[in-house]
Parts: sequence; C-alpha cells; structure tokens
Amino acid sequence: MRVLILGGDGYLGWPTAMYLSRRGHAVGVMDNFAKRRWEMELNVEPLIPIRTLHDRVEIWREITGLPIELFVGDLRNYGVVEGVLDAFRPDVIVHYGEQPSAPYSMIDQNRAVFTQMNNVTGTLNVLWAMRKTVPDCRLVKLGTMGEYGTPNIDIEEGSIEIEHKGRRDFLPFPCQPGSFYHLSKVHDSHNIRFACRTWKLAATDLHQGVVYGIETDETELDSRLATSFHYDEVFGTAINRFCVQAVAGIPLTVYGRCGQNRCFLNICDTLRCVELAVTNPAKPGEYRVFNQFTEIFSVNQLAESVAQQARKLGIRADVVRVENPRVELEEHYYNPAHTKLLQLGLQPHCLSDVLLDNMLQRIVEFKERIKPDIILPHIKWNGNASELEEMKLMWAGA
Amino acid sequence: MRVLILGGDGYLGWPTAMYLSRRGHAVGVMDNFAKRRWEMELNVEPLIPIRTLHDRVEIWREITGLPIELFVGDLRNYGVVEGVLDAFRPDVIVHYGEQPSAPYSMIDQNRAVFTQMNNVTGTLNVLWAMRKTVPDCRLVKLGTMGEYGTPNIDIEEGSIEIEHKGRRDFLPFPCQPGSFYHLSKVHDSHNIRFACRTWKLAATDLHQGVVYGIETDETELDSRLATSFHYDEVFGTAINRFCVQAVAGIPLTVYGRCGQNRCFLNICDTLRCVELAVTNPAKPGEYRVFNQFTEIFSVNQLAESVAQQARKLGIRADVVRVENPRVELEEHYYNPAHTKLLQLGLQPHCLSDVLLDNMLQRIVEFKERIKPDIILPHIKWNGNASELEEMKLMWAGA
Repeated sequence: MRVLILGGDGYLGWPTAMYLSRRGHAVGVMDNFAKRRWEMELNVEPLIPIRTLHDRVEIWREITGLPIELFVGDLRNYGVVEGVLDAFRPDVIVHYGEQPSAPYSMIDQNRAVFTQMNNVTGTLNVLWAMRKTVPDCRLVKLGTMGEYGTPNIDIEEGSIEIEHKGRRDFLPFPCQPGSFYHLSKVHDSHNIRFACRTWKLAATDLHQGVVYGIETDETELDSRLATSFHYDEVFGTAINRFCVQAVAGIPLTVYGRCGQNRCFLNICDTLRCVELAVTNPAKPGEYRVFNQFTEIFSVNQLAESVAQQARKLGIRADVVRVENPRVELEEHYYNPAHTKLLQLGLQPHCLSDVLLDNMLQRIVEFKERIKPDIILPHIKWNGNASELEEMKLMWAGA
Repeated sequence: MRVLILGGDGYLGWPTAMYLSRRGHAVGVMDNFAKRRWEMELNVEPLIPIRTLHDRVEIWREITGLPIELFVGDLRNYGVVEGVLDAFRPDVIVHYGEQPSAPYSMIDQNRAVFTQMNNVTGTLNVLWAMRKTVPDCRLVKLGTMGEYGTPNIDIEEGSIEIEHKGRRDFLPFPCQPGSFYHLSKVHDSHNIRFACRTWKLAATDLHQGVVYGIETDETELDSRLATSFHYDEVFGTAINRFCVQAVAGIPLTVYGRCGQNRCFLNICDTLRCVELAVTNPAKPGEYRVFNQFTEIFSVNQLAESVAQQARKLGIRADVVRVENPRVELEEHYYNPAHTKLLQLGLQPHCLSDVLLDNMLQRIVEFKERIKPDIILPHIKWNGNASELEEMKLMWAGA
C-alpha cells in the first residue's frame, strides 16, 4: 500500500516510516520541521543526536535499498497539502503531524492558540484535500487517551451506548480533556467524525496512551537511524523522563499525590498498532476509535519501577513528589477499554525489567548530554499572572 | 453592571446593546465589521438598510441620552482583546463575536478553516485576556442548539448523568454538530469548560435556537436604530427567510423531507435570556449551559404557518420542497430540555399570527429591495468536486 506519514520527522513518525517501508509498503513522509524550532525556542534537544530527515531517508535507502519519498511542507498550507496528496496518491495517510505537547500548549496565550490553530487547521486541510484528491484514501489519525480525561465511569473506545429516560443511542464518548493540546485533539476528533459522516471518508482515530522506549527493530539497524528521544518537561513523557533522571543521578519527580493513572505502551507496539489500523481499514463513511495502549500504571508505580531497576545497575535513584503543575484529579477511577487492537492481533510488549534495563543502559551512553535543568516542571496550568509574565520573558514568543 | 458586547454590530449584538443600555447597564460594544465584508463577498445585504455602528451609537445617545462605548477591533488579535478588556473593565462579557453561518462554513476549504480559526481563536483570546485582566468578569457566550445534533435521546442542558456498567458520572452531553460552523461552537464549548475548571473563570454558554424577528422595543424607537435582518441562504434563518419569500411572491422552500425539528425563539426573548444570564451570574469555576429557545417546530410546520398568514394578507404563498443541500436526518426524535431560563423568569413570546403579520408587513415596506436569487440554496454539504470548483469561482475566496 502507498502510505503517507505526516509528521515523519518525529519520535513516532520516523520509526513508523521505516517499519512500514520494511514491510513492503511504499512510504512517503512529510514534515515542516516545526518541532525543531520549538526545541530551539525552549533550548531543549533530543538526548540522542539525530540526523536530518533528508539524511535518514538516504541512509535508509543505502542500508535497505528501500526508498522513502520525502515531502517538506506545512499542513496549514492547503495548497501544499493538496499538492502532496495529488503527487503521492496515498492509499492511507498516517497523521502524526501535530504539536504534541500538553505543557507547550499551556505556556501562554500564544502557544495555546498556536497549538489549536496548527493542529485543527492541519487536520481540516488533510480532510478537505482527501475529499477532493483521494476520496478513497483512509486516514489513520493519532489522537490521545487524554481526550477522555478521567470520568468516573468506564471509558469505551470512542462511542458509548447511553440509555436515558427510556431511550437509547450510541453517541460519541463525552470528553474532558486536560490542556489546550488535549482539547486540540478533541476538536480534531469531532471534525474527522463529521467529515466521515458527511463526505463518506474513512478514518481510524487512534486514542493513544503515553509512549515509552528508544529503540525499534529498525532504529537498531544503524545508529544513524535513531529517532528523536526527549526527556525535558515539555516533550519528554513519563517513563522516558524518569529513566533520564535516574541516569543523571537526580530524583525522579512525580507530580502531586501521584495517584494519577495513565495508559502506556511501548514504541514498538505503536508501530504494530498503526500497521493494524493501516491493513484493516475503516469502511467508507466509518469513523472508528481504537484506544491504543497496553497497560495502565499510576505515575508513582512507574517511578518506583524505574528507580528499582536503576538501583540494580548500581544507580542511586530516589522518587520525590513535587507540586503538581497541572490541574487534574490526583486520585480517580480509571478503567478504559482497549480490546479492538487486541482483536486485530496486537501482542503487547509489556513494560519489563529487561526493557527498563535496556533503556537505562542506552541512556547511560549519552549521560554527558543530559541537561538536568530542563526536566523539572516550570509550566503551570494555573500559574498567576506574574508567573505568566516571567514565562513569557523566558520564552519570548514564537 | 459594566457589560461588554462582542459582535455589537450584528443582528443580535446591537439590539442587546440597546436593551441592556436602557436597563441601566454601562454598555460597550466591540466589532471588527467582518460580517460586512462577508456580505460583500457573497453579494448579499440586509433587507432593511442599516447605519454604521458608529452612527447608531451616536443616534442612541441623541435619543436616550445613554452612552454606548464603541471599540473597533478583531478578537483574533490578542493584544487588542487584552487592551479593550483593560480599558473597559467589564463585569460581564456577552460574546456574539463569531462567524454565525453554517452554510458559509461549508462553501469551501477556505471558509471552513476560516470559520473555525476565527471563532476558536477569538474565544481563546477572550478567555486568556479575562484570566489576566479581569478574572472576576463573567462570560456569557452564544453557542447553538446545533452543537447537540439530533440524538435519539432527550437533550439535556450541557451535561448528562450517565449510568454505565454500574457506575455514574455527570458528563458533558455528547455532541454531533452538523457543519464546520456548528463544530466551531463545540470546540468553543470545550475550551470554555476547560478554562472554567482550570482557571476558575465563570461562564454561561447559551445554546441558542434559531432566532426570528425584526423589531425589538428599542429598534422601534427610531428607524435609524434598525438591526441587520438577513434573508439570504447564508445568513438568513428559516422564519425570516420564509417571510421574505412570501412577500417576494416566490415559493417558500423547505429542504428535503421537511421533518427536521428545530428550536426557535423570538429576538425579544434572546435579549431577555441574555439579561437573565447577565444578572444571574455563574459562580467562579462554574461552566453552565442554558438551552435558549422557547418552541420547537418542524421546518414544514413553520413554512405552512408563514404561508397561511401571508394568504390572509392577500399574498399567494406556496410551500415547495427542494433537494436538501445539507447532510442531516430529515426525520428524527427531538426533545431538548429548556427549563433553566424559564426558572430564572423567562416569559416566552411565542410565535403567533400577530407576530408573523407584523413581520410580513414590515417586510412589505422593503419589498423592492428583495433579491430573490440569493435565497435558494447553492451551498451543498457534500457537493461533488466540480460543483465545489464552480462555487470557488463564484465566490473566489476571502
């Protein structure tokens, strides 16, 4: 199949491109390298130095003989989107091409509006261009489990049957997202659902948990194929950040009362889930949601697991609680469904001591590059106005 | 109270400004006159010629002695929003300042993206500026009953108690909006709900039905105070459009099988509802939804009522069905709650023969100005690509 990956320069986009290329798909990647600029703004960088996307595509071809077609362009520019779709004629679009950080979206007004405009406009442009240019193409869109928030009932996969005053309907699951970033994904989901109903497009919305891991089978082929691995407060995710804190010899920081439960999955499972969505397509007019994760942990549990594994490697690791920069429930019921991908054949790689050990050892190789001061949380969900002003001075606006 | 009305040049914004001014509130209005340009783009204009907002504010002062403060600016410009809030220091913001038309949002990619960017950015900027400048100010935001769509269960006011697998929670009512415009209002509602929860802002989201009517007590004080009354396919609403079709001696056009049920209210009730929301404020941290309408009619019923009343005036009026340009259920269950505003004291002005008679007679005065060719629907929700291209040539892009 011809698969176009939007956001092909990213943590997940690039490994997905290699994974699908190696499995016989004709892969294209598109990116505008916006994240490279956000990193520059915030003075953060991936732990492991990464090559340009142009170079990695070339290295991939050298090693495997497989071509990946590269498009450089911004999804906010409709003409560019239509042009790329018309040139590549994808059977499936895998859409990772969005601003992916909740803290980034909470820095200030500027980033909040930017995040929503960037993500919503990009996705709208993809939908309009699909409709006009490749109406039979299927969309596989990356959403997030954070769209649901933490309701006091079981979370279903996208829709829920509601019985109310003697009548029944199958309706979109109510969303309570927790940041302007998470809100942007909820807006996307509503827009995509509408496009499927109205234009008979076909879409799979992957409500993904928090991804951890550094390596995939393809990145391991050559160190020059490494993907972008972040550990900072803005782009780093929980497990990745904890491992880096352990290696750096600084305390592992958990937020608030630490009872937050979240969904997690290994980066290798992300690739497999996307493959399952690509090869088991939605039908025309169908909008479906897969909850894409394999395990649920409390943040505290995770930090303790990482600390324990670090100690086995002779690294002293402490877990400390810090004031929660976010506004969220710190203890709550949490029981999201995740059966659809398992039914399609997903075999989870669960978090194990071996995996943590591999991650820690890989991070040790780059210990000298760790900047400890970019890990602690500075971005507050409801900081007061003067804190906001400081933040704006520190990161003076894109 | 100090009340700032965003979108103060509009069909509802201007009458609201006069209504609240006359009732002792210190009123400011803000507008960027964007709708005047959209009218120009589409070659449509209000039936009754209206003065500039500057002139009407001056006429209002002459007649009543009451000042209305005027701000000209675009809500998409954060600096402008913060500046106006800081200068006016409102106790309440009444936010009508959005692109208000579903068909406009469905013309093409350009208008779809514009509508969402304009509406969502404007509202985000208002939220951020409130938080920084006037955190105790209450927001009264105009949403739409169209946010809910037409589910097969009773529609509640914003939230619904869901029992699911033995557990219960009170959650946002699931939304199934029917156009990119309606989607923009759903996005707004999610953003406002989040801002209330996270920043303890106070907001009332008025999910309003379709408004009809030309005159209010204040517009009747002087013909120069008339508000913008549209009857075209883009900005005209059902009853207003039917009345104009009758007077023009052309058939009243209903879409599809005509079994669509919608919520309606008189323009005078809009003003009273907004007053009730303004004077019975939400509490800090509270996000509440009022379903703002007084009656439910099928589109067919309405057309027949208008035709019947027109005939009494000696006007021959026929109702004809035309192909539905929209993608929507044409027969469906519909039972939305609307008790909260009634509990606060709303006394509905129901649709009556007298009212239709008054509307028809007022329209007769301007019969010569009616352009019949702007009434029939050309904008299709899922027109094919070549129709789309025609549309783009006709309205070549903002």
